Parts: sequence; C-alpha cells; structure tokens
Amino acid sequence: MDTFKTLKIKKSVYESNDREAEKLRDKLLEDKVFLLNLMSSPGSGKTTTLVRTIAALNKELRIGVLEADIDSDVDARTVAHAGARAIQLHTGGMCHLDAGMTRQGLEGLGTEGLDLVFLENVGNLICTANFDTGAAKSAMILSVPEGDDKPLKYPHIFEVVDVILVNKIDAISCFDFDLDRFRSYIARLNHKAKIIPISAKTGEGIKEWTDWLRSEVEQWKSRGKE
Amino acid sequence: MDTFKTLKIKKSVYESNDREAEKLRDKLLEDKVFLLNLMSSPGSGKTTTLVRTIAALNKELRIGVLEADIDSDVDARTVAHAGARAIQLHTGGMCHLDAGMTRQGLEGLGTEGLDLVFLENVGNLICTANFDTGAAKSAMILSVPEGDDKPLKYPHIFEVVDVILVNKIDAISCFDFDLDRFRSYIARLNHKAKIIPISAKTGEGIKEWTDWLRSEVEQWKSRGKE
Repeated sequence: MDTFKTLKIKKSVYESNDREAEKLRDKLLEDKVFLLNLMSSPGSGKTTTLVRTIAALNKELRIGVLEADIDSDVDARTVAHAGARAIQLHTGGMCHLDAGMTRQGLEGLGTEGLDLVFLENVGNLICTANFDTGAAKSAMILSVPEGDDKPLKYPHIFEVVDVILVNKIDAISCFDFDLDRFRSYIARLNHKAKIIPISAKTGEGIKEWTDWLRSEVEQWKSRGKE
Repeated sequence: MDTFKTLKIKKSVYESNDREAEKLRDKLLEDKVFLLNLMSSPGSGKTTTLVRTIAALNKELRIGVLEADIDSDVDARTVAHAGARAIQLHTGGMCHLDAGMTRQGLEGLGTEGLDLVFLENVGNLICTANFDTGAAKSAMILSVPEGDDKPLKYPHIFEVVDVILVNKIDAISCFDFDLDRFRSYIARLNHKAKIIPISAKTGEGIKEWTDWLRSEVEQWKSRGKE
C-alpha cells in the first residue's frame, strides 16, 4: 500500500460551492464513506496525527487520505507508508479546498471499499474555514506552541468545526498555554465542539479521538442504510 | 503611547497591485520610512518578537506597527504597550494584505516622524506571500515546533523573503527540528535569505536581528537622500 498518485486539481467552476458540497455529501452518504475535513495551521501535526490514527484504526476500518498541499508529496508518502490508500493533491497555489476540488480528489483516490477518508486540507486557519468541502464532519488541530489565544484571532474556523484536537500536549510545560482559558474562549464561539487534548508523539488522547471517529463512522453508515 | 486605533480596511480596487506597491515604496523612500512586511503562520511568535525588537530599538529609532488581524485587538494593545505607535487593522476575513490595504493602514497610523514601521501581516504562509505590500523588505518567522520541512510544503514564501527568523529556538530539544537540514532546504529556494535563529522568549539572536534591521533602516534613509 506504500504507493500513491499525485493529482493537480483545478479551481472549481461551479457557481455555488454550498450546493456542490451538499451533492457530494449525499453521494458519500449513499456510498457509506465518511469524509472528515481536517484543518490546521502549517506545522501543527496533521500528518503525524493521521499516522497515529491510521495505526489505531487500520484493522477495523479501511482508510483513505487526500493530502492537499501547495507542493511536495512528503505527506502522501508518509500516510501511504502508514497503511492508508493515499493521493497527493497539488492545489497550484490555492490556499484551501472547496467541494469541487474535494470531489476531484475523491475520484482520483477511488473510494470503493473505504469506510473513512481524511481530507488533510492545506495548512491555513483562514481560507479553509470558508469553504464547505462536502465532508460529513470537520475537525481542526491547534498545537500548544501556537498559543491559547488563537480563537480570538481566527474565530471563524473555531466556529465551524465539530472537534478540536489540542496537539503537542506533551510540550505544554514549555509554553504558556492555559487549557482552561482556551476552553472558555471556545465556549463563547462554539458550544458543540468537542475538545480533545492529544499528543501525536506520545499517543496521549488518541483513544478518545479514535473512539469519537469510530462512533461517527458507524452513525454515518447506519444513516446511509435508511 | 499605550493607545491605538482600530481600522477596518477594504479590499483594494486597484488593477495592478504590483504598480500600487511600487508607488507606495517610492513614497516611503521619499519619506525615509522603512517598512518591513513580517509574515508567518498563526502562533509562530510575531507579536512577541516585535515586543522584543521594539524594546531593543526604541531608544534609537521611532517605531510604528500595523497589526493586521481578522479580528481582535490583542496584538495592537501589546505592541502599543511596548512603546510603538500602533494601529489595529481588521481585514474583514481577508487572508492577506496587498499594497492598497497597507497604504490605508499607513495613512491610519500616520508615519510622520517614524523611522521604522512593521506590518504584522495576517498569520498565513500562503496568501500573504503572493502580494507585494510595498514594503522595503520582507521577513518571515518560522517557529521550531512547525517543523524543518515547511520549505518543502510552502516554498513560495521562503522564496520571496529577505530574512527568516527561526523562532522558539530555546525549545529545539523538545522537537525534531534540524537546523542544518532547514538551511539546506532554504539554499535550494533562496540563496540570498539570511537565516537567524532567535528566541523571542529568552532574547537569543535578537541582537543579530536588530543589527540587520538597524543597518537596513540606515541604508534606506541614505537612499532616500539621493
């Protein structure tokens, strides 16, 4: 499984991204494929978190990954090696993915036989949050070194996600990150978001995260059966 | 000096950002105001670095700061308190500043009597790098926790900057960041960029950084005299 393709994706020509996203989500529900849109800043640990997640769930779920990057194929190589079906998407300078681009990526990957697909979005806290990709749910990673004040500066992404992984929690003693203060900022923006402190390095919190994912995949598949 | 204004800036209507940037740069040269465009990911330490920089140069240079953010005025408050003339710019969701927006910011700040103005750009490694702001020079901060592989994934910003500050160098033992490997990636993209490891927390490297800034301001002012 250590192979992957690289695909150049083009800006979508659809008038309404929201409509396109709804169509894609309906198709994924029908196909019983749970798509998770994973967003974060550059360097927060998206790929390392995915590698941990794939290792934890690989025996029970068939996993695919869309790796969106401006350039390079480092990440697709890494997640393919970890055991996922992977495709590298080159966005040609685009700072986010929309539903049409996600659809191109899914078609390039091939979703037959997959239960769970991660869209590792471009590393960007602003533009990514403005586009519905068609995913069933959205998650973001904020890493401890980025600081607990990020919800004040980039509120929109914190408003739209279902889960916030606070990564690099093992390094919290090196930084002035106050988890309670962070929780209070999130409470003002998004009272539904689940906050899970994790360390992709040590494995802390990965069980809570994969338990959430497993449960969401099951719910999605049972909705698809109706 | 602990006060600052907040300004909502609008997307520019100019046809050619490059032309607008050149005009702004000419004006700043005439006025002998050195504008530095400072870019980075969210949470890399732009504001803390600015506070250190202002403290180091405040007695010899008159400093202004344009704080560009999607929302909040945390940063303008902080740098105003550090002793700079500051203005908070709210970009209304825009993920970067262009020359027209920078001009609005400078007009709002008032550059009379200033030697050095920092534009703290929106936290974003992608979109910011695509727009000439009219600054004399551009710098970026990459923090150690973000990882030494960022030049592979976000090459453009590393190509266009004059200086790269590698911040949070005090935390390097907690992370797998190889400074030599990082230097080799940069050498392939931009052989002119100066790389300065710093810690905005401990002050390490700040002298080399402020020496570079002081020298650049002097050169700019003497060019302005010609």
